[in-house]
Amino acid sequence: MIALGGEGAGRSARPGAFHGTLGDMTILERTVAAISPADPAALAEARAHQDNLTKPRGALGALEEVAVRLAGAAAVCPPPLPAPAALAIFAADHGVHAQGVSPWPREVTVQMVGNFLAGGAVANAFAAQVGASVTVVDVGVAADLDPAPGLTIGKVAYGTADLSLGPAMTPEQALAALETGVAMARDLVDQGARCLITGDMGIANTTASAALICAFTGRDAAVVTGRGTGADDETLARKIEVVRRALRVNGLSPGVGASARGLETLAAVGGLEHAAIAGFILGGAALRVPVILDGVIAGSAALAAAALAPRVVDHCVAGHRSAEPGHAVALAHLGLRPLVELELRLGEGTGGLLAHPLVCAAVRVMREVATFDSAGVSEKKEG
Amino acid sequence: MIALGGEGAGRSARPGAFHGTLGDMTILERTVAAISPADPAALAEARAHQDNLTKPRGALGALEEVAVRLAGAAAVCPPPLPAPAALAIFAADHGVHAQGVSPWPREVTVQMVGNFLAGGAVANAFAAQVGASVTVVDVGVAADLDPAPGLTIGKVAYGTADLSLGPAMTPEQALAALETGVAMARDLVDQGARCLITGDMGIANTTASAALICAFTGRDAAVVTGRGTGADDETLARKIEVVRRALRVNGLSPGVGASARGLETLAAVGGLEHAAIAGFILGGAALRVPVILDGVIAGSAALAAAALAPRVVDHCVAGHRSAEPGHAVALAHLGLRPLVELELRLGEGTGGLLAHPLVCAAVRVMREVATFDSAGVSEKKEG
Repeated sequence: MIALGGEGAGRSARPGAFHGTLGDMTILERTVAAISPADPAALAEARAHQDNLTKPRGALGALEEVAVRLAGAAAVCPPPLPAPAALAIFAADHGVHAQGVSPWPREVTVQMVGNFLAGGAVANAFAAQVGASVTVVDVGVAADLDPAPGLTIGKVAYGTADLSLGPAMTPEQALAALETGVAMARDLVDQGARCLITGDMGIANTTASAALICAFTGRDAAVVTGRGTGADDETLARKIEVVRRALRVNGLSPGVGASARGLETLAAVGGLEHAAIAGFILGGAALRVPVILDGVIAGSAALAAAALAPRVVDHCVAGHRSAEPGHAVALAHLGLRPLVELELRLGEGTGGLLAHPLVCAAVRVMREVATFDSAGVSEKKEG
Repeated sequence: MIALGGEGAGRSARPGAFHGTLGDMTILERTVAAISPADPAALAEARAHQDNLTKPRGALGALEEVAVRLAGAAAVCPPPLPAPAALAIFAADHGVHAQGVSPWPREVTVQMVGNFLAGGAVANAFAAQVGASVTVVDVGVAADLDPAPGLTIGKVAYGTADLSLGPAMTPEQALAALETGVAMARDLVDQGARCLITGDMGIANTTASAALICAFTGRDAAVVTGRGTGADDETLARKIEVVRRALRVNGLSPGVGASARGLETLAAVGGLEHAAIAGFILGGAALRVPVILDGVIAGSAALAAAALAPRVVDHCVAGHRSAEPGHAVALAHLGLRPLVELELRLGEGTGGLLAHPLVCAAVRVMREVATFDSAGVSEKKEG
């Protein structure tokens, strides 16, 4: 059983639509137990197949490794085409906003949820380009939202507490948000999705991301904290101090013990959307459906997911590398190479969506390209 | 009039299906004259529009500049969606293959043409992913090809002469190949293409590319010459020496005078597919249809196109940066930033195809995303 820790914590302390036990294990425990590592036979078969295709060996660069990775995750070569894709945008608010870490008013979170549902955001435009569905999940917006098509209400709280003053969430809240993410992955796969893409919306959520990255990787706040969606010098300096204070107040020694206490670390300095995204990643992996990670929010959530289930990384593809400095640190820690590097710093899932056609292209090569033998093409002379 | 130079050269010295004069100007001259620079008003409008959309300013990084660029090229804001796309793979052989610059037998060029026509190559898989049509153009394959659906015969010669012994082409051949490319652009746009993607096939064509890049940028052969599709150390050393000899034998001083003598430089050390791609780029630009450049072959051809018409660059997008070192040199000289950087080194148009959804996504943002006012989203507080 994954220990909740903290005082008064219990496995079913907070009942909710997405939270519960099945038999003797919690949903999260069953999810983690269902995640298999990459299949060695499929990996080997995929690498050998790449070398027989009508192209010079290695000529597709990083895309070859993506295709091999997906074969390992699916435990079959060639892997299934990861389409259609489904984007889930997990939205939540942050108590730490009160510390002045963002130049944007907090109400932008709920306003942007409305923009997603109306189809007017960048994520909608990108999703239309790649043929992905868009689902918005209220996991912790600080307002009651009216039901709407495309909106799933999985609210755990009206935003987190201020992580610079104490834990952002109780362990029970973090667990409930994780299970909301697991359930969302299952629902989207049930609806036909064969690739999941992480998205987020939450004013001030790069502050929580920076704190998670410090805690899990041991890097200093000054290295991993960035300008988010446009902090000026003064705000950035304040943000770094807030991240340092959050770690101190919550008794976290950067890089020490965080992996062993993944849920507590996530609860202490994460956001509700971070927890839900971690669950979404775990849920996709448990169903052997690949997950394309978006930017720094997803990267920090993936660190938490990997703390709970290290094998989950085999099922992830890093969609892009954002301009936020902590993102590169998180990806390096996870051992993931991003596919798109265009200095995006928007979130919403935009970087993950852009990567989807690249991932599909990589898999199509394995499924559709002729071999030297079948096409009657001469091979390279070896020196 | 663009001077052909060389002895016995004349504007209609080599009649052919794609070569001729219209009024007092050659097709090439009319094409060059039809290319407009980026429209300043559309550029300014596009930049202002980007800043009103519901995203932090600059949050889409390099994609914002792509959308602005396409608005300038189309002279309208927002620019039209650059879809559907059409890939043209220009295939040709190279006399310099005799110098041992490639580990692949020369007949692979014609074998791969067969693979493209059968739908079995990586370019076919990538084109299927992005919904692009594929046309193969025989501009200089060293064999007679049977007519086939998807194949256009525009053969100028059975391969080039050996560029390390003298000019690879006569100026008339280079002009004929250029005009084949112009005609191909026009035909594909007539058939509905709203974006052109360059592709190439020609064993030994990275040697010609390196020579062109040396000539146009002035950089040393050792800097711009790479391993192509898999040259070993010995072959690479030979290839660098062959490039140096080609420049010397053809009287080209790297970086000196090449731009003023674009056609002669192209003829001296280029390939028939390089000339055709240069024409294809010019043809797209003349029709105000954006051209996505593939890898090092396209980059070197674009240097030739820019020598003939500097404004052509405003209509180009660099699809990717290949692993070939000369490609980065060519892109820097052209002032283009590549969208995909995944160490591809295949050619065929594969890197250009991968970039197409990214370019479309950038344009969709301009056309589909709500403004702060229209969506009722609060703006950032300025410090």
